[in-house]
Formats: sequence, structure tokens, C-alpha cells
Amino acid sequence: MAVIGFIGLGNMGGPMAINLVKAGHTVKVFDLFPEAVDKVVTQGATAAGSAVDAAQESDVVITMLPSGKHVESLYVSSDQPLFDVVKKDVLIIDSSTIDAATAKKVSAIAAEQGLSFVDAPVSGGVAGAAAGTLAFMVGGTKDQFDQAKPILDNMGLNIFHAGPSGAGQIAKCCNNMLLSVLMAGTAEALNMGVENGLDPAVLSEIMLQSSGNNWALQKYNPYPNVMEGVPSSNDYQGGFQVDLMYKDLGLAMDISHQSGAATPMGAQAKSLYTMHKSKGNGPLDFSSIMTLYRNE
Amino acid sequence: MAVIGFIGLGNMGGPMAINLVKAGHTVKVFDLFPEAVDKVVTQGATAAGSAVDAAQESDVVITMLPSGKHVESLYVSSDQPLFDVVKKDVLIIDSSTIDAATAKKVSAIAAEQGLSFVDAPVSGGVAGAAAGTLAFMVGGTKDQFDQAKPILDNMGLNIFHAGPSGAGQIAKCCNNMLLSVLMAGTAEALNMGVENGLDPAVLSEIMLQSSGNNWALQKYNPYPNVMEGVPSSNDYQGGFQVDLMYKDLGLAMDISHQSGAATPMGAQAKSLYTMHKSKGNGPLDFSSIMTLYRNE
Amino acid sequence: MAVIGFIGLGNMGGPMAINLVKAGHTVKVFDLFPEAVDKVVTQGATAAGSAVDAAQESDVVITMLPSGKHVESLYVSSDQPLFDVVKKDVLIIDSSTIDAATAKKVSAIAAEQGLSFVDAPVSGGVAGAAAGTLAFMVGGTKDQFDQAKPILDNMGLNIFHAGPSGAGQIAKCCNNMLLSVLMAGTAEALNMGVENGLDPAVLSEIMLQSSGNNWALQKYNPYPNVMEGVPSSNDYQGGFQVDLMYKDLGLAMDISHQSGAATPMGAQAKSLYTMHKSKGNGPLDFSSIMTLYRNE
Amino acid sequence: MAVIGFIGLGNMGGPMAINLVKAGHTVKVFDLFPEAVDKVVTQGATAAGSAVDAAQESDVVITMLPSGKHVESLYVSSDQPLFDVVKKDVLIIDSSTIDAATAKKVSAIAAEQGLSFVDAPVSGGVAGAAAGTLAFMVGGTKDQFDQAKPILDNMGLNIFHAGPSGAGQIAKCCNNMLLSVLMAGTAEALNMGVENGLDPAVLSEIMLQSSGNNWALQKYNPYPNVMEGVPSSNDYQGGFQVDLMYKDLGLAMDISHQSGAATPMGAQAKSLYTMHKSKGNGPLDFSSIMTLYRNE
Repeated sequence: MAVIGFIGLGNMGGPMAINLVKAGHTVKVFDLFPEAVDKVVTQGATAAGSAVDAAQESDVVITMLPSGKHVESLYVSSDQPLFDVVKKDVLIIDSSTIDAATAKKVSAIAAEQGLSFVDAPVSGGVAGAAAGTLAFMVGGTKDQFDQAKPILDNMGLNIFHAGPSGAGQIAKCCNNMLLSVLMAGTAEALNMGVENGLDPAVLSEIMLQSSGNNWALQKYNPYPNVMEGVPSSNDYQGGFQVDLMYKDLGLAMDISHQSGAATPMGAQAKSLYTMHKSKGNGPLDFSSIMTLYRNE
Repeated sequence: MAVIGFIGLGNMGGPMAINLVKAGHTVKVFDLFPEAVDKVVTQGATAAGSAVDAAQESDVVITMLPSGKHVESLYVSSDQPLFDVVKKDVLIIDSSTIDAATAKKVSAIAAEQGLSFVDAPVSGGVAGAAAGTLAFMVGGTKDQFDQAKPILDNMGLNIFHAGPSGAGQIAKCCNNMLLSVLMAGTAEALNMGVENGLDPAVLSEIMLQSSGNNWALQKYNPYPNVMEGVPSSNDYQGGFQVDLMYKDLGLAMDISHQSGAATPMGAQAKSLYTMHKSKGNGPLDFSSIMTLYRNE
Repeated sequence: MAVIGFIGLGNMGGPMAINLVKAGHTVKVFDLFPEAVDKVVTQGATAAGSAVDAAQESDVVITMLPSGKHVESLYVSSDQPLFDVVKKDVLIIDSSTIDAATAKKVSAIAAEQGLSFVDAPVSGGVAGAAAGTLAFMVGGTKDQFDQAKPILDNMGLNIFHAGPSGAGQIAKCCNNMLLSVLMAGTAEALNMGVENGLDPAVLSEIMLQSSGNNWALQKYNPYPNVMEGVPSSNDYQGGFQVDLMYKDLGLAMDISHQSGAATPMGAQAKSLYTMHKSKGNGPLDFSSIMTLYRNE
Repeated sequence: MAVIGFIGLGNMGGPMAINLVKAGHTVKVFDLFPEAVDKVVTQGATAAGSAVDAAQESDVVITMLPSGKHVESLYVSSDQPLFDVVKKDVLIIDSSTIDAATAKKVSAIAAEQGLSFVDAPVSGGVAGAAAGTLAFMVGGTKDQFDQAKPILDNMGLNIFHAGPSGAGQIAKCCNNMLLSVLMAGTAEALNMGVENGLDPAVLSEIMLQSSGNNWALQKYNPYPNVMEGVPSSNDYQGGFQVDLMYKDLGLAMDISHQSGAATPMGAQAKSLYTMHKSKGNGPLDFSSIMTLYRNE
């Protein structure tokens, strides 16, 4: 069992840290919000007084932060950067969803200082974080991946080695961009069917069994009351917020621009989510894009 | 066992008729191309001298024609319309993919003449037609559906009652529009990954296991040599032609316009397929949209 | 001065017929709505009892109808088609905005019967119809154009010979598709500026003097209260309805599909206008697309 | 007459500096490429040994640099930042096209140090730079604008006060995004007309006189050989490169994302330009988007 420093205990980070505790690790946790810390400490973690305190004696450091700026600041450019305080043989796993450029840059700085840093963003949502069924997409060397995998296994079901440093962020971006396309496309097809007299449940079943089959139809039908236990049957509360999909699509558009890879479908989904968000729907689940389509 | 008249023996109609023969029905077939007739007669069908000849004494009439104009002409407005010659208790199944408006109109004319006409377009491609694993989407009353189902079971695996007259065509349009979105979206995500250094097979596997999962990744990966036995690994030969997807997207855009249902994602896929077709790629499989994305 | 039969006296046709009266022609008018007839008769036109009555002794017949179906029915396929009753040396000018295929078909039928039929759709709106400043886009031979021009000069300022039969409709479609792109693009640029702190009037002036200059900025600014006397400064009342732009974009998408000419920008504008219309804005002026952009 | 330090003597900066010399100012110039310096010195400017040398004794400092990073580095974060060496009463005019966020940040830092910095990006291209007919869009206070205007008048024809700090960059972004929409929309409308038998020159004339009128039709027709002296009549050589439009659209998409202003038309144009660039057309003039449309 390892000593793990875990920094960033939000909706995702909190339950992830708890799963590490349950697996038997010694987990030192830090977050700017004391209540977030308390929740995890109740489950057996130790409260650290600062990020430095959480990181400096740990075998593994895991971070779950909002953006690339936060990650770079914490590890590299703050007054007391973590890269200056961690053990030389530490394994650093950044599970934040951030831009690939920052991930690569921070990893390269780590390597210069003789440290090991991998990007390992997750998918699977808050429910997956709690259940320990997340998917991790890891960017790093084969050795780094092999080292990280047993730890990530405690928090996730599918642990992928996406490629070299930054590849985890790229893979997540590609997946989430595709997800936005699936969700908007599914909502649109269902709406067109309904506007032409079809029953949304019947049409969903037909497409699920045909070449329209996709994750949104399988797990997350956006039409109200077709599927139980999903946000569309609960006024689009809970789930994965429009604001977060908006953030991820912003990262995808940056990757598209920097690499010159055309993304007309992703850009279209981005435009739809921007319009949807601009009408005040940022806090709703992302399947609420359904309401952008429905006639009034 | 029934006496069935089958008209239209192209790439899809031919193998469908053969499956009816194999199931033990008496099948009288007609097509304007004698070679198409010969292929089916070799398997045990009877050649009819004309569409009228195929239809007039049959219990069931099945048509597989290129467009709504052909269907309306054959049944209603030609010199010797089939509606004037069929038995009064015949069941007419039109499996052509045509516009829903014509399907409804022809069905209504049938009803006025005391005849029973359902729309039952298929999906599943040439391979599915041969294997008898097609999906049928049936538009008609519950009684009509119950009557048609045993016949369609001989040619398909999933027989859906989509709704009233025309609903089969609507459902197929919704599904194929969504399919075009899945295919373009998947090609785009794979291309962005590859342009940023990822392995297309690894990225495909990651998205397949994540929320990007969809039919294109499961059955029809558009990236060359990621999946065996699909058109992308065979220079985009065979499969479902760009020209046919173009036709189906045209029908979808018509339904969208007539019903006022917005289809920004479908329209975007339509624009991409139009550009792709305009560069001479109409005869290729529709997964060749991949090549529109790849940098040169 | 000619004897002119004018059929179809709506918002556009009414004032057009009045301008012919003012120019000194003898104008026999017909419309299904008696009030529409009365308005024009007050200005000096003669009420005809039927379309046939208006057309049969006239030197020139002008029609202003809602769709290709109406045009084909009136001239060709009704119980008493106008082509059967008009004088042999009549000049028929159809100023309806209809699909080019019907325009070509009806013109070809006219030619078979030894009659002369041109398509001559207009642009310039209700104000232009009243002021006699419309633009006419004429499809027909050079001779037909030369014959039509003096008549059209009484109703318009710019009379263009677009090309052979049908070319008038094609030209109008291209223009109006481009107009929808200009309007949506201008609304979007203004909105982005305003959301980032710019004054819409200042930004309008800058773009008007720069490479963003276009008809929407010149004549029809969509941002409220930047320009006087336009619909945006009058709650988007009056002007050119969203419903009419929607109809025109439908015609443009049909031409695009039939000719295989890709129209990604037009399709995008169509999607935006469909969403806008689906929220109940069909009767507003088309510059109201501005409100689709503005944050709430 | 003023002493002016001018840094960045590329295709735009070079001729701009020359116009300042012609107006009678003392101009000290610097560029990393000695040949660029030589061209301007030949016209009467003085070569400075470094950016610091050009800036430190000047009344006005003007920069024309490739990106926000360069601007921030030069003024703020390099080893010898210009803000540390300039005269206290200097007027700093940054005419680079950069992101508005950096412009605002650098201006705020200047203000903290008691310095005056305005953003003043240009439009009008290389020809406008040489002819002194550029448009300048200035972001700063009214006083700053009044101070900058006489200097900018020596290089441009239209000098706009766009608004507070950053507003010049925002206005340029809005304008150039709209320009990309006009160009793609115009190319598309012309292509659809031609594919349907119209003459591109006739259709251009019709739309120019109608509601499709826009800058691309007026000054920069993208269809080959319709207009003389424009890139489309010269194999799309010269003019404003696809690569530069791509850069500007990247800036526009960033502004859209950061402010949550939906830009479906701009995003569509961005997707088209990305596809066009990915096929190797980056160095061509941006009106070459025409070739993306034309059938093969």
C-alpha cells in the first residue's frame, strides 16, 4: 500500500480519494474548501495543512484541478512549487482535464528535474467516480503507465494507455467532442421523429437496434421519460453539466486549431452548446440540448 | 406459405426475394433488367412477364424501387396501375426508401380502394439482405403490421412497428441521418487524434469503451486498417455508397423542412457528404468521408 | 400601352399592378380575395371575374403566386388552363418565386404550344414594390427579355437577364441564400462585439467602412436602434418575414441537392432560421435572427 | 513632427513606417531581419540597434508583431522590457493583430507604470499599407485616441475609436470573422449558380445590385476572371493568405468561447478554411476558398 497525496476534492476528486482509502492506501488530502476535506477525512483520509504538506512525503501525488493554469501554478510556478518538494521517486498523476500543451510542458519540466509526471484525465462522471468505474486515459511512457495502473485500478474500470505525454488529454478531448456530436445528433433525430408523429420510445428502440446505435441512446437518452434514472427524466438535473461540456469543447477547438485538424461536426456541436448555454442553461445536464430542438 | 409478387430485384431486392423462396413461398419476380431476374429464378423463383403479371394473383406484393415517383407510378398513375389489378385481400409491402409524403399518399389511395399498403423500408445493407438479417421499419396499422411481420421475418431479424402510415419512412430517415452524424463525427475525432500523435486503433478502443461509443466504432471503423473486413480496409470499396447516403440525407432534409424540425447536425453532415461527392467520391463507401478530413 | 392581365394581388402583386396602371396600361386584375382586388381597382385597374377572364384577351399576362404548384396548375393542369385561352402572341411573365424545375417545365410546355413564358422573380420587398424600385431577374431568351423589359421597367429599377428559362429563379435563390448568410453573419458579429463591450453603432460603422461591408449593414442593420426606419428598430415588425426566408432557403437547399453544389454556409443559415422559426418567430422580419444570438 | 520608434517591419510594418517618414517624422526602426530594416532605411528611416534603442528616446512607439506572446514579451516580460526604458510621456501604439485579453493586460500594466498604451490593429492589406489607406481600429480612452489619431492619419484613411482598451482587437476580430463569412457565402452562391448554368459575371452583377451585395462582390470577387486585378484572376496569388485568415478566425473563436457569444456562421467559415488549409492551400489568397466548392 502506498502513501498518496491527493489535491483537489471536488465532485470528482472527493469520491476518487475515498476509493483510494477503501483500497487500503494512506491518503493525505488537501482542498481550498474545508468542507470538501472533511467529507473525505470522515472516510479515513488524513487532512493535510497545504498542498505541499500533502505532497512532500508521498509515494504518489494525484491532482484533480479545474484548468491548466492551476496545474502549472501548483507544480511549477507558485511560490513553493510541488516539483521542488516531492520525493525524487514520486509518481505524479494529474487527472485534471486540461489542455494538452500544458500537460506536455509540465511533464517535460518534471523530466528535466528527474521527476515522473503523467496526464490521466477521466471519464465516467460523478457516478463513476463514486462507484470506482471511471475510465482513465493515460499519457506517458509504457513504464509510467505500468506504474500508474495499479493505483488507477482502485478508482476506475478501464485504464487506457493513450500514448506519450499529453496523449491522455488528447484522447479525452477526442472522446468528449465525439460525445457532444452523438448527444446533439441523437436529440435532433428524436426531435425530428416526434415532430413527424413518432413515439420517442419506439424511435429510440429502432435506432438502438440499427445503425444509429450510440452511447446516448444506450445510456443517456435525452428525450424526457424514455429512460429511467437519467437526467432527461429528472428535468435535466444532475449528470454532466452543459458548462463542463462547454469547457471540454473549448479545449477540443483549441487542439483542432493548433493542429489544423478540421472539426466541422464538433464545431457545430460547440455552436449549439454555446447557444444553449447563452440562454441560461449552463447548470443543466448536457442532454438538455434536447430543449434547444423542441418547438414551442 | 404465400404467393408473393416481388418487383425490383437490385442489390437489395434480389437477395430479399431469394430468402422468401428459401422460406418456402411461391415467388413471382419482375425487374426491368433480365439478368436481375435470372439470378433470382436460378434460386427457385418464377419469372413474371411484367409487374402486373407478378402482382395480380399474389397474396402479397413487395416492391423495392428507387424513388417515390417510381412507387406512385407503379401503383397509381401508370397506364395499368397495380392497384387496379391486385386481389382485394392482398397485402402490399413497399420496402423502397422513399419520401414519407408519397408513402402516406399512396397508402391513402390504397385505403380508398379497399386495399392494404404498408411502408417498410429496410436497413442493414447488401450483406444483411443476403443473410436475412435486415431491420424493417413498418408504417401502418397494428393489424397491417401483424399481417406483414411473418413475411418480413423471412428476410430480417428486427421487425419494428414504427407507427402509422409513413412512419416507417420517417424512422428510417431519422436513423440514417443520425448514422451520417455518427460516421462523420467518428471520422473527425479519429483524425484529430491521429493528427495529434495518437494511434487510431488505440483511440478507437478508448472511445469504444467510453461515452464516444457508437455504431461506426463498433461495426464500421472508417480509419483504414483499424478493423478487418470493412470498406475502410478495402479502399472504401463495397458497402453503402456515398451516393445512397446523399439520397437519404436529401429525404431527411425534406422532412426537416416540411415539418420545421431543425437539423443542424444532419445539415452539417449533408454539407460534408455533398463536398465529398462533388470531388468524385459518390461510388465509394460512405465511411470514405474519412478522406475528406485527412491532411494532404 | 398594353392590355395586361395581372393575377395574384398580395402584398407584392397589388402595388406592382398599381404601378402598371400608373404607367398608363390597361390592367385587368384577379385575386381570390375580393378586398385585394378592390384596392387595385380603386387605383384604376379593371376587376376580372376570373383568372381566365383576366388573361384571355391580354397582350401580357403577369402572375404573382405562392408556389410552383399554383403556377403549374393555373397555366397547365387546372380545368381551364390559361395556356388554352391566351392569345397566341401573348407574353407571359411569371414573377412568382418558385422552384426552377417547375419554371423550366412550364416554360417548355408553353413553347410546345407556341407561347412565350419567362420566369421573372423579384427582390426588393413590399417597399420596393410600392416605389417601383424592384429588381427583376429574368430567365428566357434574349428576345423574350427584350420584350419583357419595357413592361418590367414600369415596376422596377434593375431588370437583369439572368440567362435561359429557369435562370431567373436560380439567380434569385442564389441571391437570397447569400442574403441569409449576410444577415446571420452580421447579427453574429454585432452580437459578439456587444458581448465584449463594444457599442453596436460604432462597430456597425467600423465594419461598414471595412471588409465586413454588406447589404445588411448598409440597408437593414439587425441590431435594435442602430438604424432608423428598419424592422430592428420597430420590434422586427414589417419587412421580409422569417417564414418567407424559410421558404426561399428551402428552394435553395433543393437546388443545392439536385445539382450537387455544396452549400455549407447556406445550410448553416437555414438551420439557424429553422431554429428561430420553431420558437414561434415566423411572422417577424428576418433580421430578427438577431434575437437568436442575444444572451438572456 | 515626432520622433517615432517602429518595431516590426514585415509586409505591413515596412510600408507603414515608410509613410511615417514621408510625413516628415523622425523614424527609428528595428526588425530581426536586417533586409527588412534596409528597405525602410533606404526611404529615410534610421536603423536602431535593438528594440530598446528604437524605443527609449521616442515620443511614439509603434509595434507590428505576429502574436500576443511577442507583444507581452517585448513590453513586459523580456530581459529588458520596453516599459522599463521608454520616456514617461510616450504614446505606445500596438498595431499587431493579437488576442484582446493580452491587449487589455499589457495596457493595464502600462497604466500601472504611468504609461499610455493603445491597441490599434489595422485592416486593408499590404496594398493599403503602401498606399496609406489602412483602417485603424483603436482601443483606448478618448484622450489616447485623440493623441494617436494624427499619427495614424499618416498611415491610414479611416481611424476609428472602437472603445476602451482591447476594443480595437475585438472590432478587428468581429470584422474579419464577418469577412470570412462574406467570402465563403459569396463563393458558395456563385458556385451554385454556375453549377446550374448561370454565368458567374452575370450572377455577380445581379447580386451586387441586390440584397446579396457585399465587400467580396464589390472588391474581391472570388470567381476566376470575373474581376480584373484581384487574386482570383491571378491563380489566387498575393492578397490576404489563407494562413492569416486562419489565424484571425482562431482569435475570433477564442473571443467567442471566452465571452459565450455563439458564432455558428463564423465557426462554419472556420471549419471550411481549416479543411481548405489542410489540403495545402495555406499560402494562397483567402478568396481561394472558391476552389473548395468547385466540382471536379
